[in-house]
Amino acid sequence: MLSFRESQEIINRELSGIQTTNEPRELYDPIAYVIGTGGKRLRPVLVLMSCEMFSGDYRDALMPALGIELFHNFTLLHDDIMDEAEIRRNRPTVHHKWNRNVAILSGDAMSIISHRYISACDHAVLKPVLEMFSKTALQVCEGQQYDMNFEKQEHISTKEYLKMIELKTAVLIAASMGIGALTGKASAHQVEQAYQFGKNIGLAFQIRDDYLDVYGDPGVFGKMIGQDILANKKTYLLTRSLELARGGLRKELLQWLSAGDTDPDEKINAIRNIYRELDIEKLTASAMDEYYRNAVLHIDRLDIPEDKKMEIRKMADKIPERSN
Amino acid sequence: MLSFRESQEIINRELSGIQTTNEPRELYDPIAYVIGTGGKRLRPVLVLMSCEMFSGDYRDALMPALGIELFHNFTLLHDDIMDEAEIRRNRPTVHHKWNRNVAILSGDAMSIISHRYISACDHAVLKPVLEMFSKTALQVCEGQQYDMNFEKQEHISTKEYLKMIELKTAVLIAASMGIGALTGKASAHQVEQAYQFGKNIGLAFQIRDDYLDVYGDPGVFGKMIGQDILANKKTYLLTRSLELARGGLRKELLQWLSAGDTDPDEKINAIRNIYRELDIEKLTASAMDEYYRNAVLHIDRLDIPEDKKMEIRKMADKIPERSN
Repeated sequence: MLSFRESQEIINRELSGIQTTNEPRELYDPIAYVIGTGGKRLRPVLVLMSCEMFSGDYRDALMPALGIELFHNFTLLHDDIMDEAEIRRNRPTVHHKWNRNVAILSGDAMSIISHRYISACDHAVLKPVLEMFSKTALQVCEGQQYDMNFEKQEHISTKEYLKMIELKTAVLIAASMGIGALTGKASAHQVEQAYQFGKNIGLAFQIRDDYLDVYGDPGVFGKMIGQDILANKKTYLLTRSLELARGGLRKELLQWLSAGDTDPDEKINAIRNIYRELDIEKLTASAMDEYYRNAVLHIDRLDIPEDKKMEIRKMADKIPERSN
Repeated sequence: MLSFRESQEIINRELSGIQTTNEPRELYDPIAYVIGTGGKRLRPVLVLMSCEMFSGDYRDALMPALGIELFHNFTLLHDDIMDEAEIRRNRPTVHHKWNRNVAILSGDAMSIISHRYISACDHAVLKPVLEMFSKTALQVCEGQQYDMNFEKQEHISTKEYLKMIELKTAVLIAASMGIGALTGKASAHQVEQAYQFGKNIGLAFQIRDDYLDVYGDPGVFGKMIGQDILANKKTYLLTRSLELARGGLRKELLQWLSAGDTDPDEKINAIRNIYRELDIEKLTASAMDEYYRNAVLHIDRLDIPEDKKMEIRKMADKIPERSN
């Protein structure tokens, strides 16, 4: 069974071998640039590891794994246009480095290429793989639309927030596990367990991201602390606070959310104080832990040899490490 | 064998039945809007007719036919953002009616949905259908990028222009015929003939569009005459003229192309005069006729009953009618 790191190496090697030297350059250069930007490769690694849990040969899953990573990178490319983000992983975004039209069109091409890789799996599992992929891909679009809608809405419930991150983030991680299992010729029940593991892990990861924005170690986390707070971003922490805060605390929270020019440090400290009053750190950590435990339960439940479950559990075990 | 009109009715009925009432509305409303904008439905009609030529049952081709129409409409949606077009078929474009982000994201969703319909064909032909579709879809992106590049380039040869319209327009019409043939269980040779028919018809159609901008009957053509001329659009007529014009005529042509504020009627008349000097009307008509004749040759060559070829020929016969 491949480890996370071995899977990562395979994925990075295969990604660097993808042919993107075609013409016109304005269409294909941005794709090579985005692929080269790196990242943890979490999704394709899960595809390979999930496949290996069942069939024992990751090569059955290689093409769909690359397809999912390409699709994920396509969504980042287009999201960056929509969010007007100028930097992604310390490099200028495509629309910033080239221009908006190049970013739209090379993203479109990347989405098509991702479908092509997904389709290059064994004919015997092609239909269910395509069905899971296209359903998921559509859900990711729905999640992004909800995320954009939420920016303009004042009050979002935690339930609505969780639905949004499920669509925008968790289902693609779920489908990575599910498609891996399908290519590994898993049974319907096994595919479902793998999928549910991925969904719960995905939710735990996103809540962890929200958590680290406030409680992370800046040196380890690699991002500045409090960016979500400054942007009034709807996070697990904020939606819970909006539900729990009463009286003066609520008034103070709403004031900070509607404040115009404020001193960044002052705002971050004020919101952190409100979170402290409401015990948000603990509530968030426990939500995260619950999704983590749920995830692992789905792996425990699988009728496969114990040693095969181990690498997947090891990967999941990294979630409770909240320092990075 | 279905006629063009019968095929159109089937396609319109099926398109109006597509479920687009999902949430979030900002994602799905624009898709319903674009589908409802209408159009000739040329591509899906060709898929059905091509399938019927071989298997005799259009239902084998219905899902891919809808997928190709959805894909075509997706490309128009995103092209309109890139071209900053405000009107399409007499209605505001999506980015103009909603906003740019809605147009990007609903286009992305539409592209995914189009793949979903393409995949819903008979399992026995799924691989070759997907391969032809994704290769073609990528070529359409390449064509759009060349088209945008050409706007900024002063000199484009007719050869480069033909390559661009082949990618941007003709290959999707070719693939409509090819995918129809694949779903109709045609042989590799038959698929190739159908594809080549489509490619030549597509080129003839695009050159006809260029021709009608200058020589069409405004009442029948439904568009104002001379719009391509005013926009300095690289057309078959203009690229040929740039290759043929010499001396004073060349100087005059280049002056009009680089002129700033000009009287529209004066510019249209001047360019038409240059075209007259160079015999462009006849050259364009003969290029169109040649693609038309080539197209029909590929149908003639097919080893299928004569009556099955007839409806396809009838459709192709409409090209030489240059009034609309």
